[in-house]
Amino acid sequence: MNIGVDLLGSDLPPHEFLKEVLGFSRDLPETINLVLFGTPSLFESLHPPRLNVVFHPVEEVITMEDAPLAAIRKKRNSSLCTGIRFLKEGRLQAFVCAGNTGALIACAKIELPSLPPIERPALMTLLPSKESEMAVLDVGANTTNSADHLVQFALMGIAYQRSRGVLLPRVGLLNIGSEAKKGTPELQEAYNKLLLMSESSSSFCFVGNIEGRDAFLGRVDVLVTDGFTGNVFLKTAEGIAALILDELEECSPDAKGILSEIRARLHYAEHPGAILAGVDGIVLKCHGSVSPQSLIRSITTAARLVQHDFLSQIKTELTLLQ
Amino acid sequence: MNIGVDLLGSDLPPHEFLKEVLGFSRDLPETINLVLFGTPSLFESLHPPRLNVVFHPVEEVITMEDAPLAAIRKKRNSSLCTGIRFLKEGRLQAFVCAGNTGALIACAKIELPSLPPIERPALMTLLPSKESEMAVLDVGANTTNSADHLVQFALMGIAYQRSRGVLLPRVGLLNIGSEAKKGTPELQEAYNKLLLMSESSSSFCFVGNIEGRDAFLGRVDVLVTDGFTGNVFLKTAEGIAALILDELEECSPDAKGILSEIRARLHYAEHPGAILAGVDGIVLKCHGSVSPQSLIRSITTAARLVQHDFLSQIKTELTLLQ
Repeated sequence: MNIGVDLLGSDLPPHEFLKEVLGFSRDLPETINLVLFGTPSLFESLHPPRLNVVFHPVEEVITMEDAPLAAIRKKRNSSLCTGIRFLKEGRLQAFVCAGNTGALIACAKIELPSLPPIERPALMTLLPSKESEMAVLDVGANTTNSADHLVQFALMGIAYQRSRGVLLPRVGLLNIGSEAKKGTPELQEAYNKLLLMSESSSSFCFVGNIEGRDAFLGRVDVLVTDGFTGNVFLKTAEGIAALILDELEECSPDAKGILSEIRARLHYAEHPGAILAGVDGIVLKCHGSVSPQSLIRSITTAARLVQHDFLSQIKTELTLLQ
Repeated sequence: MNIGVDLLGSDLPPHEFLKEVLGFSRDLPETINLVLFGTPSLFESLHPPRLNVVFHPVEEVITMEDAPLAAIRKKRNSSLCTGIRFLKEGRLQAFVCAGNTGALIACAKIELPSLPPIERPALMTLLPSKESEMAVLDVGANTTNSADHLVQFALMGIAYQRSRGVLLPRVGLLNIGSEAKKGTPELQEAYNKLLLMSESSSSFCFVGNIEGRDAFLGRVDVLVTDGFTGNVFLKTAEGIAALILDELEECSPDAKGILSEIRARLHYAEHPGAILAGVDGIVLKCHGSVSPQSLIRSITTAARLVQHDFLSQIKTELTLLQ
């Protein structure tokens, strides 16, 4: 399989990414080829260290400051657009990118077919909770969503968790209270639709509204939310986790061992990046401020998704759910 | 001063509240009188243990399940409505309630004058961040807000922090990215308005958009958000904090001492409850699932707000800001 990695357009210097990825490539199984996208100067006087690493120089870079739609129109030969195009053409089986989120989503939406009945792709990430992991979506692909979009997010989350072996995923709506009439009109409508669907479905179980406080108690496998709220949810969880762990480290230098264990478990959420769910292609989006280690984890996750034929599984599950 | 305490309508049994409050009242200074609202049966065969504790039996209770507007119309003699009415009549200087949030806000809005130029009250709470505390509002009084409401929330947060001795509060908007054009149209408009205001103001400094991840780094004294997002923000922070601390306790039973220190610092946010800002009266709202200890802390906070003449300070600050 070929996995594309965009070394450009994130907050980290491309040469640091490159160094880390080249180091990592030494331990890669022969079946995995890495296609690295970078500027010609980045690869200058370097040779791929192994046969399963390919350098693909590109002339253009989409930056974090670029307006997404203008950028993908004007910079068709950027690393980001080239990666998505290679995915479409079957030259890549997965694409990992830590660049401009808006541009990545816009490009994927334009170039890749959508997975019926999904109208809008969503960013889906796994977050730890008590004794399990929950798929949270959308964590930032859209700013506002209709009730139908929220229901479609639920379908993708269900399909993903079923593909991970969770046979009867428990689905919840992120809301400000548990009562059916809480929250925005969109949430109220999505609540009623999911309730109705779950009554005639053996593929999932709708547990209703979930508050931010209860989300981490392990009561849901799929947490559905609009992209704005989901993004705040994800980043707030990361922010408070960092605050607590930093404070603990100051209070108790002896506890470093335990703390790094907890950090590793919590940062599980960060490592694999978010999956852009709803398009016919495996696209992983990492944070712009990603560490090289996290990018490596995203590559590993991408390889696992390809190996387990994630896309076919999602398509099957989505058909069953209709 | 007289502080009213609603013992009814929360998730905790009223007799547990009563027991805790009576125990606490033994250490109260003579200048603070507690007026406790409960059912006649709750007070049966009990006598107030001290002169500065008064039992006020009421016949009606607003429950968590009651629809707010219908409840305050039909249950005018409930503990919640009586407390707010006593506040209006000057028989109380502050009112602490852990009951139905919607009913409390609706009742306060109807009975108490608003503080010009505030059109909608907001729930404001203090959350810990690196080396300071930030006032976050709205954390749940409203579901959606206009740009003007968001600007008014900022004014209340600024006034509150200035009354706490922060002379030049740094104000941020909770958003999904730092760029001015991120988020909903309401946020974009509020961004421009606050930027313009801050340029001609010596009372505050607008630092722009803040992501959930950065909110805890101590970069803002006032974090402005709509009631839906703010509520998710608050509860998510609590949820992940509880998850981490529980995990740490399991991993390392020896660390109990440090963990309870951290817990105490983090739960600072929970203890005083949220202030209902924007009405002419001191109303504190605790969580429905509040612990008796948190309710006690809310009473202490209410007493401090009265002692420091919080309402006059807020009024002065709001006038200066106009």
